[in-house]
Amino acid sequence: MPVWLKDNWLLLLLVFVPVALVLEHVVHAAPLAVFLASSAAIIPLAALMGRATERLAEQLGEGIGGLLNATFGNAAELIIAIVALRAGYFDLVKASITGSIIGNVLLVFGASALWGGIKYERQHFNQTAAGLSSTLLVLSAISLFIPAIFHLIVGNTAAVSERTLSVEISVVLILTYVASLFFSLRTHKHLYVGEAGDHSAELTHGGGSGRAVALLLAATAGVALMSELLVGAVEATAESFGMNQVFVGVILVALIGNAAEHSSAILMASRNKMDAAITIAVGSSIQVALFVAPVLVFLSYVVAPQPMDLRFTTLEVVAVGISVWIMTLVAQDGESHWMEGVQLLAVYTILAFAFFWLPGGAH
Amino acid sequence: MPVWLKDNWLLLLLVFVPVALVLEHVVHAAPLAVFLASSAAIIPLAALMGRATERLAEQLGEGIGGLLNATFGNAAELIIAIVALRAGYFDLVKASITGSIIGNVLLVFGASALWGGIKYERQHFNQTAAGLSSTLLVLSAISLFIPAIFHLIVGNTAAVSERTLSVEISVVLILTYVASLFFSLRTHKHLYVGEAGDHSAELTHGGGSGRAVALLLAATAGVALMSELLVGAVEATAESFGMNQVFVGVILVALIGNAAEHSSAILMASRNKMDAAITIAVGSSIQVALFVAPVLVFLSYVVAPQPMDLRFTTLEVVAVGISVWIMTLVAQDGESHWMEGVQLLAVYTILAFAFFWLPGGAH
Amino acid sequence: MPVWLKDNWLLLLLVFVPVALVLEHVVHAAPLAVFLASSAAIIPLAALMGRATERLAEQLGEGIGGLLNATFGNAAELIIAIVALRAGYFDLVKASITGSIIGNVLLVFGASALWGGIKYERQHFNQTAAGLSSTLLVLSAISLFIPAIFHLIVGNTAAVSERTLSVEISVVLILTYVASLFFSLRTHKHLYVGEAGDHSAELTHGGGSGRAVALLLAATAGVALMSELLVGAVEATAESFGMNQVFVGVILVALIGNAAEHSSAILMASRNKMDAAITIAVGSSIQVALFVAPVLVFLSYVVAPQPMDLRFTTLEVVAVGISVWIMTLVAQDGESHWMEGVQLLAVYTILAFAFFWLPGGAH
Repeated sequence: MPVWLKDNWLLLLLVFVPVALVLEHVVHAAPLAVFLASSAAIIPLAALMGRATERLAEQLGEGIGGLLNATFGNAAELIIAIVALRAGYFDLVKASITGSIIGNVLLVFGASALWGGIKYERQHFNQTAAGLSSTLLVLSAISLFIPAIFHLIVGNTAAVSERTLSVEISVVLILTYVASLFFSLRTHKHLYVGEAGDHSAELTHGGGSGRAVALLLAATAGVALMSELLVGAVEATAESFGMNQVFVGVILVALIGNAAEHSSAILMASRNKMDAAITIAVGSSIQVALFVAPVLVFLSYVVAPQPMDLRFTTLEVVAVGISVWIMTLVAQDGESHWMEGVQLLAVYTILAFAFFWLPGGAH
Repeated sequence: MPVWLKDNWLLLLLVFVPVALVLEHVVHAAPLAVFLASSAAIIPLAALMGRATERLAEQLGEGIGGLLNATFGNAAELIIAIVALRAGYFDLVKASITGSIIGNVLLVFGASALWGGIKYERQHFNQTAAGLSSTLLVLSAISLFIPAIFHLIVGNTAAVSERTLSVEISVVLILTYVASLFFSLRTHKHLYVGEAGDHSAELTHGGGSGRAVALLLAATAGVALMSELLVGAVEATAESFGMNQVFVGVILVALIGNAAEHSSAILMASRNKMDAAITIAVGSSIQVALFVAPVLVFLSYVVAPQPMDLRFTTLEVVAVGISVWIMTLVAQDGESHWMEGVQLLAVYTILAFAFFWLPGGAH
Repeated sequence: MPVWLKDNWLLLLLVFVPVALVLEHVVHAAPLAVFLASSAAIIPLAALMGRATERLAEQLGEGIGGLLNATFGNAAELIIAIVALRAGYFDLVKASITGSIIGNVLLVFGASALWGGIKYERQHFNQTAAGLSSTLLVLSAISLFIPAIFHLIVGNTAAVSERTLSVEISVVLILTYVASLFFSLRTHKHLYVGEAGDHSAELTHGGGSGRAVALLLAATAGVALMSELLVGAVEATAESFGMNQVFVGVILVALIGNAAEHSSAILMASRNKMDAAITIAVGSSIQVALFVAPVLVFLSYVVAPQPMDLRFTTLEVVAVGISVWIMTLVAQDGESHWMEGVQLLAVYTILAFAFFWLPGGAH
């Protein structure tokens, strides 16, 4: 039994890849079964993608490697979103973006702070790095606020302006994201050194770069395949449970895409490496908001039935704003304790309830 | 003349207990007179309740005692609110919750920081404890935001969902509140040791636990009696002055319920014990939001004509959000000065003006 | 060639004073030409006003001098606004207030942090002073929030209440501003000593107080004259470019009025004097919100066709709220780096795009 399997019972979930395929194409099972199986299959595939990316990044050295990590770190979310984008399910795409942002901040970091805080009275992290994460989170929230407020003001009279505004904001976000990479990988990389090294050390287990590329390609193909099944089954599943699609996207799909971050961040917290836990959790939120979201806006002009804008629903905008607000307060003093974790989880629970009760057609 | 009376001219206001009863039942005086007399009577009764609770808490030891303090620390507000709840005056109940939150943060702590800051150039307090208070305040604001935003989205089409959501949020708030007690009384109690001791030392003056229980029961009965008169007179009083009920609840009723906190917090600040001042002021806000408000939601299913939800008016939600915003900034650096007090009072004044000018039927 | 001219090529722009006059009164040129020429002329005039005020302040000593600086530091904006106020262009007045607040915080301080951050890895500033600036900024945002929210609640049914509320808020703001001067010039002046001295040393170049008064009067007259031309040409210019007036006010007019602050703050940052850069940038925002805006409300009762209130448009309120939010996070840790500058500039760019796309009649 290989080392990486022994350490990672998560990979046993790979069995759901064939299961999902059989359910969909052979048995023609109920959408719920396909939804569950493909969800279960995506979790280990996303973890493998992340691991392969990191192994590759390590071999490519700090500069290019860091860039690779920063670009493909959320590739699983990106692939799921692209599949939904092509099908024109813009509400689902946006809901999974929202869910990824709030899930990483509230659920992933909340669970990490709680779990780590049970073992350690107080845990510390670098304030300058956490400070940058905070302001980037605020920028993320702002990029969702402005299109929503703009729509509130202009109503349905200015669709063209709204699309142009979304594209312009997307350009600003991508440029800011690139600048932040330049900051963390080049001009101020010493702020990030310790934890980045520790982090990848935890998750990678040797192997050549050829093997890493092969693993990356295989896992990517797997995620894409399973995403097709997942996205195809979402609508019917949501209906059969009386749940609205936004809830499914914000809570369920986002959970699936971020399962790997979840376990890594908690592992780091339990080893008192809170800088790594923050980088994984908050870093993912920022990457989704400043990189994945704008890329999807651009891609929509190529692969989607019509262009997608950055206008999110009111509850999504509020949820992101609230999550960012409480996270910046938690991050600002450079230390965490278990009660901060409890509060982040409490906010996540409240938001999940609110999304759950949204009427189906409120989008 | 007993020591506790000599030190506490406030207790002279107890004379208004019989005055209020005579005005209501013998003279059948104008509502304004009853309102003023019962208000004046509640102030010393609430102070006595607080004092008896603290004395009892002291004798029960840290654990149970702290719990008692945390549960009945705002019993006067709770009793006033229950009386209004039974009468079905939900607007008044919510207004007094709002007023208690913003009044403690802006008025009570603002006055403390100003008064203490006149004597001391800068006053310091424990950042970890203040940080927890800040995030709990944000959670309080969030628990008011979500139901209001939810209503904004669903309009009047989903009353059942709104009530369920309010109950669910109430459960989350209570659980979080319990967790925060576990944090401050058990796992991290050393952060709170110094000031808690000082605080109760200031306000208690010996006496057996039997006497404390008797005092507590008597004061509670008095507050309940006076609250009946107060609540009964609110509507007519508000009308006779052309004031809306929300203003009366947010500003006047909250002032009455928090008069005791007010004088204790200022006393602590003038002795340079800012940790105690923050605990009294911000702690009361948190207790009202995370404990009193959800308890009232639950109680409404038992004692009120119909269930109460957590949906507050727009201005109430904004007022709480704004108060929390500026308070977290004031608290974050672990020090205060007189100008911070001035600013909190300025925000309180602006909010009071806004509530005052609200049209009567805008609720 | 005098020293002060050699160091200040900006003063060469004074040539646009006669150019603007000729374009308007002799050539009867297109509004755009008058707009550009008068804009170009105001920049050096505003700089001269600032310099003369500072020189005078220096000679009058700390107390009175500081007061003078605090009162007339944004005199150019005030004059432009008064000219627009007299013409009844309230939208333009408010837009230039908004633009001044967000421009100073995001553009001026953003550019300073970026420029200074290119030379220095991290730059430090006094946390207590920056903390006070942060809370005053929040108070500024609140003073814009409340009238807008109030209008949202009452609709068009309570114009008189809205005006009264605006006047009351204005009184609170002025009093708070006076208190903040008392704090920074009297009770806590040691927090501000170092940078204030350095700052004025950079910008002043000797000369008697008589000469300073003469320069101040001449520059003031020039600004007033050019503002008449500018305001007269705004409407036609905006139309000819298909831009709405709010965009012109928020972005263009504010840029012109703050050009001097812009160059001073960047100069300070490049010399690693971030306290001075913050004082210039954030201090200007605060002065505009807490002093210029209420003064304009009062003046409107005297010089304008009708009283002006403090109700700003939704996008203006949101823009100020967002700017204050990110600025408080940037300021809180007492240090800045180039990436913080990039983020502030990114937010400014996003807001500028949003204002640009606003339909003309959305105000």
